[in-house]
Amino acid sequence: MPHALPELHRLDGSSALELIKSNQITVEDYVQALIKRIEERDPVVKGWAHFNQDEALAQARALDALPADKRGPLHGLPVAVKDVILTKDMPTQYNSAAYVSKAPIAMDAACIMTLRSSGALILGKTTTTEFATCQRGPLTTNPHDSTRTAGGSSSGSGAVVGDFQCPISLGTQTGGSTIRPGSFNGIYALKPTWNSISREGLKIYSLTCDTLGLYARSVADLKLLAEVFRLEDDVTPPATPLSLKGAKFGFAKTHVWPRATEGTQNAWEKAKDLLKEEGAEVEEIDLGPEFEEIWRLYPYVLAGEGRTAFLGDFLTHPDVLDPLILSHVRNDTKITRAQQLEGYDKIAALRPKIDAIAARYDALVTPSTTDEAIKLEEPNRFTGDASFNLMWTVLQVPVMNIPGFKGPSGCPLGLSLVAPRYHEQKLLRVGEAVGQVWGERGGWKSAL
Amino acid sequence: MPHALPELHRLDGSSALELIKSNQITVEDYVQALIKRIEERDPVVKGWAHFNQDEALAQARALDALPADKRGPLHGLPVAVKDVILTKDMPTQYNSAAYVSKAPIAMDAACIMTLRSSGALILGKTTTTEFATCQRGPLTTNPHDSTRTAGGSSSGSGAVVGDFQCPISLGTQTGGSTIRPGSFNGIYALKPTWNSISREGLKIYSLTCDTLGLYARSVADLKLLAEVFRLEDDVTPPATPLSLKGAKFGFAKTHVWPRATEGTQNAWEKAKDLLKEEGAEVEEIDLGPEFEEIWRLYPYVLAGEGRTAFLGDFLTHPDVLDPLILSHVRNDTKITRAQQLEGYDKIAALRPKIDAIAARYDALVTPSTTDEAIKLEEPNRFTGDASFNLMWTVLQVPVMNIPGFKGPSGCPLGLSLVAPRYHEQKLLRVGEAVGQVWGERGGWKSAL
Repeated sequence: MPHALPELHRLDGSSALELIKSNQITVEDYVQALIKRIEERDPVVKGWAHFNQDEALAQARALDALPADKRGPLHGLPVAVKDVILTKDMPTQYNSAAYVSKAPIAMDAACIMTLRSSGALILGKTTTTEFATCQRGPLTTNPHDSTRTAGGSSSGSGAVVGDFQCPISLGTQTGGSTIRPGSFNGIYALKPTWNSISREGLKIYSLTCDTLGLYARSVADLKLLAEVFRLEDDVTPPATPLSLKGAKFGFAKTHVWPRATEGTQNAWEKAKDLLKEEGAEVEEIDLGPEFEEIWRLYPYVLAGEGRTAFLGDFLTHPDVLDPLILSHVRNDTKITRAQQLEGYDKIAALRPKIDAIAARYDALVTPSTTDEAIKLEEPNRFTGDASFNLMWTVLQVPVMNIPGFKGPSGCPLGLSLVAPRYHEQKLLRVGEAVGQVWGERGGWKSAL
Repeated sequence: MPHALPELHRLDGSSALELIKSNQITVEDYVQALIKRIEERDPVVKGWAHFNQDEALAQARALDALPADKRGPLHGLPVAVKDVILTKDMPTQYNSAAYVSKAPIAMDAACIMTLRSSGALILGKTTTTEFATCQRGPLTTNPHDSTRTAGGSSSGSGAVVGDFQCPISLGTQTGGSTIRPGSFNGIYALKPTWNSISREGLKIYSLTCDTLGLYARSVADLKLLAEVFRLEDDVTPPATPLSLKGAKFGFAKTHVWPRATEGTQNAWEKAKDLLKEEGAEVEEIDLGPEFEEIWRLYPYVLAGEGRTAFLGDFLTHPDVLDPLILSHVRNDTKITRAQQLEGYDKIAALRPKIDAIAARYDALVTPSTTDEAIKLEEPNRFTGDASFNLMWTVLQVPVMNIPGFKGPSGCPLGLSLVAPRYHEQKLLRVGEAVGQVWGERGGWKSAL
């Protein structure tokens, strides 16, 4: 056996699946290693909203009992699921006092159906801010520095993958809820094109923005997931790795750039230098004033859609909901439907424009976060600033966080690659090449 | 007591609620009357996917037991729910062999939460085509002629309201699934602005098109629902009834007009004549070639989104799904993501244009269906042609079916009124005035 059991948790999912496939380990071996890691680390990281090792082991044994010809492409892959996504055998509680329950809602979200039917194992549910909406964080800490946030709203999903407790997790993103925890936890994150993975069974906040997100510690793992979720470009990119020599990158600071502080400023320069060292063409680009308008329009979309999304909860259990949720339904910001429609229509007009801009490059590069993870402060445990992510979310383009850079306190941070809508395969290929360079020479290595 | 119990089922919801409020009848009296109607008529109409009179009566008694100060605005209102909408206490089976179960999924859709917290009573689940997607109809028949379809996919919801088995029902619309059954069953139907009522807990087909729909036999009932669902225009229209004298209507045949046959052709002329008799200005308008493009683009959106929406089901239980669902996931029509995006972007650009056109009138008028309900034919029980509805659905504007016209076989058909997005209150006010005229003098009266 090439890996001692206690080290199995360090593998990425693809490597572990290879060991399972070649009968060097069982799914149970793998899950036992993760359980051990979770037992050691969960008291500090607190990434799980629901985790039951007996349930996890029962799934592992059932998978081990499957004959080879019944095994799917993800056979034995443990996945941690943000607790706003329905799982038929585990409770879904949304970090909301209105949904505290040990009883599962007997339905799998569409993405969970896809994962299970491909052989994945649902390891547990991970922490979130309430309804993946609010900024008040769960108890989760950053695995690289427990005095800092793991980001949010997909706090637990980012933390448990960054902490080697699970190789893969699912998040969601409405503002920056997938990319920000990706950056803060030093892992890969993919927010694919809007609605390219079904959102059925996910709590709704903004129908226009909400997107399922994927976390992993390797691009190989994201590629495996992309295959299972059938994220197929119209034109399949070459199977060979991308050579960075001659590759073109458009660095888009965007109008939010003044919010970037030391860590992101340094990463920005380092990222450019490293790509240039590889022979890539690097260009700083200005997206112009019409994209800056999104700053004004995005809140219209969010408030208008939140007003609708939470009415049922508001009427059913008003006394226990976060003030932000109540304020959306009451429309405290007095946003009109005309403003919401202005947001819809003007942003819709920008989508083909950003596609066309992104298509001129191998990828756009843009900040993932303003800096490394911020310090946790009671009582709200604010999960950080999503300013750099909002624009791309509402533009519905795929975004990938590439880890590798170090903040002023030694915590990780990443930068984002962006591609035109429905170009996940292109993005993953570019992300793999870029990730190798930034990951090796960006300055940050996980000490875990 | 002004109404003998056996006649209570004939009342619209608002009238019944008045009797309950003034203590002339109990909720149980009302539900008993509906149960009697259902027992008499369900063997022919077959509109229910799940109906249990004990459950209905238990809800009624619980409502009757509520003190007056705990009663909501819909106190005692029975609502029939299309069986693609989650109800925590009744099974949700989607007319799919993959979901045959007597066990409820323990979750209420957001719209059900809103209704229950406002005092409504969920009477039962109504029939649908599989996943509200397929054209193969359920066993439901048209209450006005049992040899004909009740339309679809909201077959049961249209039929049970048209048949006086329930005053109110919920449907959904992705193509014409709310408006078509409205027309065929001789009732009012409202497909509100996209995402103006939360779609959480509804099966997903097309995220861009799917919309919750409402059925009633009076505009007063739709107004009551609109209030509870907070369908509020930015500018509240006057509370006084609209005078048709001087009101302006744009009659838009659209490029689909060649599909209209005798019943709709006659209704069209009669509708104009009746409005003119009332002193309204009536203008035939040509929306021009860019709207005709929707005919080509809508299938791109539908196929692209269906391909994503059903992947989980496809992988989990491929052997029992309708061929249309399988074909979507396999992308048998070979629609590219580029075509899907062309559909998204070009149609998005038309939304503010149709808003501006509709804003020039009190309402646009357009066909609801090609004609009265077609004959049921085995084995597929085709539910009819949605051609006249697709455009408005994907444009996301509110549409209201107004009943009142008679087809060549004496069956009902309606015409649609259309308003700009987020103008439900305006639309309902216009619909009330128009409905009085068309309903009284359009030529059709329910013989039930």
